[in-house]
Amino acid sequence: MSVIVMKFGGSCIVDANAVKNAARIITGEYEKGNSVVAVVSAQGDTTDRLIRAAGEVSQKPPKRELDVLMSAGEQLSVSLLAMAVSELGFPCVTLLGWQAGIVTNSVFGHARIRDIHPERIKKELSKKKIVLVAGFQGVDRKENMTTLGRGGSDTTAVALAAALNAEKCQIYSKIDGIYTADPACVKDAVKLEEIDYDCMQELSFLGVKVLNPRAVELAKKYGVVIEVKSAFQSEKTGTFVKEDAKMEKMLISGVTKMSNVARIFVNDLEDAPGAGYGIFDLLNRSDIQADIITMATGNNGRVDVSFCVSGDDANEAVRLLRESGLYEKNDVRCDKNVAKISVVGVGMESHPGVGIAIFEALAGAKINTMMLTSSELRFSVIVKKDEADKAVAAIHERFKKY
Amino acid sequence: MSVIVMKFGGSCIVDANAVKNAARIITGEYEKGNSVVAVVSAQGDTTDRLIRAAGEVSQKPPKRELDVLMSAGEQLSVSLLAMAVSELGFPCVTLLGWQAGIVTNSVFGHARIRDIHPERIKKELSKKKIVLVAGFQGVDRKENMTTLGRGGSDTTAVALAAALNAEKCQIYSKIDGIYTADPACVKDAVKLEEIDYDCMQELSFLGVKVLNPRAVELAKKYGVVIEVKSAFQSEKTGTFVKEDAKMEKMLISGVTKMSNVARIFVNDLEDAPGAGYGIFDLLNRSDIQADIITMATGNNGRVDVSFCVSGDDANEAVRLLRESGLYEKNDVRCDKNVAKISVVGVGMESHPGVGIAIFEALAGAKINTMMLTSSELRFSVIVKKDEADKAVAAIHERFKKY
Repeated sequence: MSVIVMKFGGSCIVDANAVKNAARIITGEYEKGNSVVAVVSAQGDTTDRLIRAAGEVSQKPPKRELDVLMSAGEQLSVSLLAMAVSELGFPCVTLLGWQAGIVTNSVFGHARIRDIHPERIKKELSKKKIVLVAGFQGVDRKENMTTLGRGGSDTTAVALAAALNAEKCQIYSKIDGIYTADPACVKDAVKLEEIDYDCMQELSFLGVKVLNPRAVELAKKYGVVIEVKSAFQSEKTGTFVKEDAKMEKMLISGVTKMSNVARIFVNDLEDAPGAGYGIFDLLNRSDIQADIITMATGNNGRVDVSFCVSGDDANEAVRLLRESGLYEKNDVRCDKNVAKISVVGVGMESHPGVGIAIFEALAGAKINTMMLTSSELRFSVIVKKDEADKAVAAIHERFKKY
Repeated sequence: MSVIVMKFGGSCIVDANAVKNAARIITGEYEKGNSVVAVVSAQGDTTDRLIRAAGEVSQKPPKRELDVLMSAGEQLSVSLLAMAVSELGFPCVTLLGWQAGIVTNSVFGHARIRDIHPERIKKELSKKKIVLVAGFQGVDRKENMTTLGRGGSDTTAVALAAALNAEKCQIYSKIDGIYTADPACVKDAVKLEEIDYDCMQELSFLGVKVLNPRAVELAKKYGVVIEVKSAFQSEKTGTFVKEDAKMEKMLISGVTKMSNVARIFVNDLEDAPGAGYGIFDLLNRSDIQADIITMATGNNGRVDVSFCVSGDDANEAVRLLRESGLYEKNDVRCDKNVAKISVVGVGMESHPGVGIAIFEALAGAKINTMMLTSSELRFSVIVKKDEADKAVAAIHERFKKY
């Protein structure tokens, strides 16, 4: 008896018809004789709706209570999915995070799984029940509810696949796999058959929303092979995320765009040790990650620092810097009219041609590059927001020839 | 340090402003130095909305999963209330049914509380936290979520008041107390200062929705004094529900109307022992309660039976009777165009004048009485639905003179 773990994202269960579709996929696998565990996200825009409701009563809701609120989203979707499965005549049971034995630390809003106690799941599977688990949520050791952060249902699915030694871990969304670029933006984007964990993690960090980077990290750690596939074309093979994926024709795995970014400037700092440290220490303590940092010393001996943060964190970052008392005299500014374009692939820095090819593509498309960073796995550039799609297309086109 | 248990009904937390208002009432009591436990229902029409969502995916949802779905309603409201309390600068913590130690049996949808394990609540109170508890929900001994049925939050509040030996148990709704009749229907209805448990329980059974009859039963058992009061005029004293309430000027406690009822007829039965038993045994096994039963033997020696059920159960009752195979030849009919008017008070049957006064009032208003039943605590009559308000007003007016 092999265990299959499936995860259904919000777009797969957006309404009653979608829920029924997911129920058919689940029961189809069960009918083949498998033990099926299905993890569910909240329906469609539930999460955003709940955040709005919180905003109506509180400026700064306590994180513990925000987790109680948010985890209701998966509670709703998992119970509705159970009803649809039951309606098809199959035995099933739902388990919330605390019932499924998903024990996390106590960092509300971004909890990390510490342990899985799969006894209850195994017991229900042994009774031939389909087990439906509310994703994204867990419980800490003091019996408080926690959530794993956005995309946390992917992590739930991978963690359960590892704990149950599952044969398959399928991540269903409305997209049928991982593409070399967003097909909505680049029409000859190519679907990958396979991709390795590291490249997938970079893609996830850099804007490919179909799979959460922490889930990929966990999959790598436990060797869980993930199949990313579409709930609406479930018969089609998706993209497999695994170790030692075979190379595609292209060197690069994908070109991504992140529009929800902001560039922040802190100008005219004294050129002394720790000038930059103060800024990033401040941000780090509020859990704000900075990326693509540049420091430039002008002729006057003063330093201008700039960096990128997520668009969600931009206002908070500016407020922190302005109110810290440290940068009162400095001009702290924010530009939200930017996008981050990234090229992800194995051994990027070992292939000096990659950087040149990117510059060539952007120059050919007359797009100005504002900032740049590179690593073994990626090249990222910052461009103006309204030039982002053109930049993705130009770079993707360029690498077809590579 | 005295413990106060408060319960806020759905109408008290219907939107963000109402939630903030409830938060002010709660923190006001906390500021006086009390230990405060507040129990919350789901917001406004959440429960109905969730039932509709279930209906879209399933004809007959499993009751266990319906409870998972429904209990999300209180999870949402309790976390939002916590955010509002926190926004006012007070320490608080939410506890769901399973966290609050509310252990029930496993009758999903209508679970009964078996035990309260108040250790966690006491621990949080000792840390000077306001404890906000999701009403209506509990957990069975196998760690399944359960709900207590409609109005179950009242039961949660009374059970916690008993377990915590609370000084006060306040039930907040949008109504400022118990009236001798619905003030929306009878303009000179009088608010009661006090009412005893038995009369209150009758009123609750007979259509006064402000307090759940099971909660009243529990309050009587443990001697919990309840104050029914308005969240929007919280400074006003409400109505106290207690043992040995002092008599009001009027003999009767109230006149109630229930519109959601149906009268069912099973005609032409054989006049043999058990003719009626079969009907009520059948209904009882499906948990359908019948009320105001009449049996009449005609000149032909055949028996006609009629009785009332809740409007929610009417179609199911008719279906059960028709499909049982027992009443195929009998004419099973249902009349939903009726309402039940009841007069509640202590020692009704000992005061023969009460019945006469009711008939006199109805005759004076030219209203036909279709069925009647009486007990020590109440008189109920069935009238046509469109004459119900007129009947309440006429009876209430008559008893002012009593």
